[in-house]
Amino acid sequence: MKVVVVGSGALGGAVQQVLAEHGYEVLTVGRTSGMFRADLSDRASLDALFAKLGSVDAVANAAGDVFPAPLPQTTDDHWTKSFAAKGMGQINLVRAGLPFIADNGSFTLVSGVLGDEVAPACTVGATVNRLVEGFVQAAASELPRGVRINCVSPTVLTESPAYYDFFPGFTPVPALEVAHAYLRAIANPITGRILKLHKTNA
Amino acid sequence: MKVVVVGSGALGGAVQQVLAEHGYEVLTVGRTSGMFRADLSDRASLDALFAKLGSVDAVANAAGDVFPAPLPQTTDDHWTKSFAAKGMGQINLVRAGLPFIADNGSFTLVSGVLGDEVAPACTVGATVNRLVEGFVQAAASELPRGVRINCVSPTVLTESPAYYDFFPGFTPVPALEVAHAYLRAIANPITGRILKLHKTNA
Ligand SMILES: NC(=O)c1ccc[n+]([C@@H]2O[C@H](COP(=O)([O-])OP(=O)(O)OC[C@H]3O[C@@H](n4cnc5c(N)ncnc54)[C@H](OP(=O)(O)O)[C@@H]3O)[C@@H](O)[C@H]2O)c1
Ligand SMILES: NC(=O)c1ccc[n+]([C@@H]2O[C@H](COP(=O)([O-])OP(=O)(O)OC[C@H]3O[C@@H](n4cnc5c(N)ncnc54)[C@H](OP(=O)(O)O)[C@@H]3O)[C@@H](O)[C@H]2O)c1
Repeated sequence: MKVVVVGSGALGGAVQQVLAEHGYEVLTVGRTSGMFRADLSDRASLDALFAKLGSVDAVANAAGDVFPAPLPQTTDDHWTKSFAAKGMGQINLVRAGLPFIADNGSFTLVSGVLGDEVAPACTVGATVNRLVEGFVQAAASELPRGVRINCVSPTVLTESPAYYDFFPGFTPVPALEVAHAYLRAIANPITGRILKLHKTNA
Repeated sequence: MKVVVVGSGALGGAVQQVLAEHGYEVLTVGRTSGMFRADLSDRASLDALFAKLGSVDAVANAAGDVFPAPLPQTTDDHWTKSFAAKGMGQINLVRAGLPFIADNGSFTLVSGVLGDEVAPACTVGATVNRLVEGFVQAAASELPRGVRINCVSPTVLTESPAYYDFFPGFTPVPALEVAHAYLRAIANPITGRILKLHKTNA
């Protein structure tokens, strides 16, 4: 089973580890890192990636920056760059990969706790996350050949202390726990699901 | 109370009528129609609009086309144009209007039943609607000076038979019923709410 994993950071590294431990052949992708080069915000680079890879069984994304700011101070740039990578970038990963993914294969995208929970300066992140989740839940009804699509929504990662100040009082989740949700999405016959790794007080 | 209403179509016409009947001064906006000209997908035109209008008490949007297609056949154009008007366009309406809206004033945006319910070729619409709803729910926590923001989510309108084939088995809702949800959003001290006018079978 060949799995493409975009991103080798705090989350992507853990996803790669868990999938490899479970016998998957992991093909890693990044702009400057990984076995193959592609940029989520550059559609042509995604087409070139899949032309090179050929048929794959699953595509898992653990990349896509968001550029937050307090809402009244957001600039066009905050919005455009956030939509380009994590928003439209993930949609384009699916559009580019669809001709190459095996029957009953799967896409796993990433959103995040913002959109479900409020935090300081959360609006850009919340908007992009909900866009991704809306795409995933609707696309599940439209993908051909049994191809599945799911989304993993982590809260702040234990491994990302630089983000702790943006999530005051949020209990972090270990990246390996989130990585197991990717395995769940890939290895079980589920589609249109948002797998939430949140530990907020309901 | 001065209310800006963008859009004078099936929905916007009803919104204007209900607000006028309830004593609001209604300022209508469109690309080619209405008392003032502006295009949601042209940020500069929104800035020019508010510079002309000055202070207003509420901004209500009933415009923003979506360009749907079956997911595997969507082109960059379907996505770009749908995000530009109904997605980023509504966000930019809020960003442009924020310096001009009165304390405790309100924004009312529009999404739609897609995103909550599946229909043929629903993914583009669902993605944009969920983006808008994510923005509204998060922005409610960030807007200054008591400014409120809500979203109205209609199912297909009785007045839009051209769309019936895209919503097979969905019970249409009269535009006037949806227009009353705009009045609710404007005249009650609520924020971050998605007011759903759906008559789907749960
Ligand atoms: N960390 C958290 O606490 C947290 C919480 C919730 C959600 N998330 C989400 O999880 C995802 C990964 O976060 P992370 O913390 O693991 O990020 P990270 O540590 O910054 O790593 C990002 C990885 O993705 C690659 N990448 C970044 N932008 C890319 C692009 N446009 N195209 C292709 N590859 C790209 C980077 O490699 P190159 O630089 O070589 O491209 C890097 O390997 C993001 O979507 C983030 O929003 C993270
Ligand atoms: N009709 C339905 O069944 C239905 C159901 C759910 C949701 N909705 C949503 O409700 C909203 C209104 O739908 P509708 O059926 O009333 O539309 P409509 O009958 O086509 O009317 C649209 C109105 O908005 C104006 N407009 C369109 N694009 C604009 C732009 N980019 N900037 C400024 N003004 C613009 C148009 O005037 P100009 O051409 O002069 O600009 C027109 O007055 C849309 O967001 C739609 O997605 C509609």
